[in-house]
Amino acid sequence: MFEAPYLLFLGEAPDALAAKMAQGIQDWRPEAVAGQFRMEGCKADLGIKDLTIKEAAAAGVKTVVVCVVNRGGIISESWKSILVEALEAGMDVASGLHNLLRDEPDLVAAAERSGQKLHDVRVPSVKYPIANGKKRTGKRCLAVGTDCSVGKMYTALAIDREMKKQGMKSDFRPTGQTGILIEGNGVPLDAVIADFMAGAIEWLTPDNDADHWDVIEGQGSLFHASYSGVTMALVHGGQPDALILCHEPTREHMRGLPDYQQPSLEDLRDVALRLAQVVNPACKVAGISINTQHMDEAKALAYLKEVEDRMGVPTVDPYRQGAGRLVAALAEI
Amino acid sequence: MFEAPYLLFLGEAPDALAAKMAQGIQDWRPEAVAGQFRMEGCKADLGIKDLTIKEAAAAGVKTVVVCVVNRGGIISESWKSILVEALEAGMDVASGLHNLLRDEPDLVAAAERSGQKLHDVRVPSVKYPIANGKKRTGKRCLAVGTDCSVGKMYTALAIDREMKKQGMKSDFRPTGQTGILIEGNGVPLDAVIADFMAGAIEWLTPDNDADHWDVIEGQGSLFHASYSGVTMALVHGGQPDALILCHEPTREHMRGLPDYQQPSLEDLRDVALRLAQVVNPACKVAGISINTQHMDEAKALAYLKEVEDRMGVPTVDPYRQGAGRLVAALAEI
Repeated sequence: MFEAPYLLFLGEAPDALAAKMAQGIQDWRPEAVAGQFRMEGCKADLGIKDLTIKEAAAAGVKTVVVCVVNRGGIISESWKSILVEALEAGMDVASGLHNLLRDEPDLVAAAERSGQKLHDVRVPSVKYPIANGKKRTGKRCLAVGTDCSVGKMYTALAIDREMKKQGMKSDFRPTGQTGILIEGNGVPLDAVIADFMAGAIEWLTPDNDADHWDVIEGQGSLFHASYSGVTMALVHGGQPDALILCHEPTREHMRGLPDYQQPSLEDLRDVALRLAQVVNPACKVAGISINTQHMDEAKALAYLKEVEDRMGVPTVDPYRQGAGRLVAALAEI
Repeated sequence: MFEAPYLLFLGEAPDALAAKMAQGIQDWRPEAVAGQFRMEGCKADLGIKDLTIKEAAAAGVKTVVVCVVNRGGIISESWKSILVEALEAGMDVASGLHNLLRDEPDLVAAAERSGQKLHDVRVPSVKYPIANGKKRTGKRCLAVGTDCSVGKMYTALAIDREMKKQGMKSDFRPTGQTGILIEGNGVPLDAVIADFMAGAIEWLTPDNDADHWDVIEGQGSLFHASYSGVTMALVHGGQPDALILCHEPTREHMRGLPDYQQPSLEDLRDVALRLAQVVNPACKVAGISINTQHMDEAKALAYLKEVEDRMGVPTVDPYRQGAGRLVAALAEI
């Protein structure tokens, strides 16, 4: 979709949180990052080289990635003049913003003039097919969660990185904007037209070598009243051989839904596995990934052991412990 | 969305099947239909009054409804001149076609000139919210199927008609283009952006009187690899108090998916009920609707009895037997 190396554009990010997407790219794909661009007043710092637009172009940067929360949902004039300079210097621009680059006439004109591209990763750029459900070659793993934002992307990235480290064949398959910015391609599933959701995931994870793994980023939750349809399309379009159950144990209610409690891991296992087996009768739960960031080390380790004893599959927090045991379980499938 | 009375535009329909949508409108909402418009060579006939555009306008027709399969997916010049005449005579035009009225400059210009509206029912005209999952007042019934095209719309329409006949408060809530053309409003769910699917169904079935029923048209199937995400959004957005299971027992494989078998009614009950109870713990399966059109009467009745004995809920073919027993079961909820 768009090419590395990247210049990460942080704008006037008021704090590190506003540059979380940029941090994600730097954490997971540092080899793709040539440097950062910070405007006056920017309070975020990824601890990497600051490059001007000219320096970035000279260093061979292919894409300026706008990966910062912007103020009031507006692409400001000061941003635009920098992005126009980048386009004119021969670089593409990619953005994870809600408001689209393509809706800015100045940017569109500069892109046309310079022959460069604007990539809005939140909106699909592909005409996806309707899913056909045909069995595909290669292996697929899908992260499913008891809730939204429990660590499904982190888990998938950690598994993919560990697989590559071990010399296994794998690809991380992003389905949301941060993942797409990290990987440079993917499907912005929440923006796909209903009829084409499952087909988009089939398109994203095509036939592959028998020993190749697609590690698919999950979205939403089968138990989340707002987004469960998106998750369902991932389960059926992804045709997973293995599920990794993801959970954040300290949450008091479903994200954004104060009247809803999280399901148990048993509930998630039973429902997700039943549905996945519609398209892949051999699908298994390979392991469990727990986000223990709100627990201290002792409490986290005790909780992980309790879940593993209860559920009978490897249970880790990949942030604390790495994804080695999850990958070992996947390698057995 | 658009207003009755309607003039049903049959174009040059080569046979009755090409005018199936029109037949649906005439069958289910005859009081909304003022007449039909047939071009030279039209082989379909709804057995109702033929009206010219002038006669329709004089008779107070508000909307010309294009409800016929068109040749080669093209809105021909001869169609356009008739539709322009209708717009200029003060009528709106609604269409269930894949190719959109709004993509035809001649029609857009005529609509602007005359101050009339073009309604493309296959594409959303509303900015739907994200679902919030909040408990709504009033009762809701959802038709769910073992497969696509097993009679979910027919079942919902038959239940709504029977409820009204018995003096119960009810509304048919369409989620596909034929239902929308029949009712004059609804949500074209398969064309909604993924993130807003469940919210669209919440929008379609808002708070209502405690004894009012929304009878929601189902789409797809939780077991259909291409469309299950759409069905899931209906289950969670619809917040059903009651499910009606729909099934066509003579089908050899899932519609459009030769490698997939239909699930059993038990499978459908268990999975659909488990998922519906996420948003409405009191949800029940109220009855079963079987499409027995490919069975003779004796075989059909024997099959219905066998299913009812096995599943323990009223089981009927509403086409043969009416929806009375389903409505009686719903009235108990």
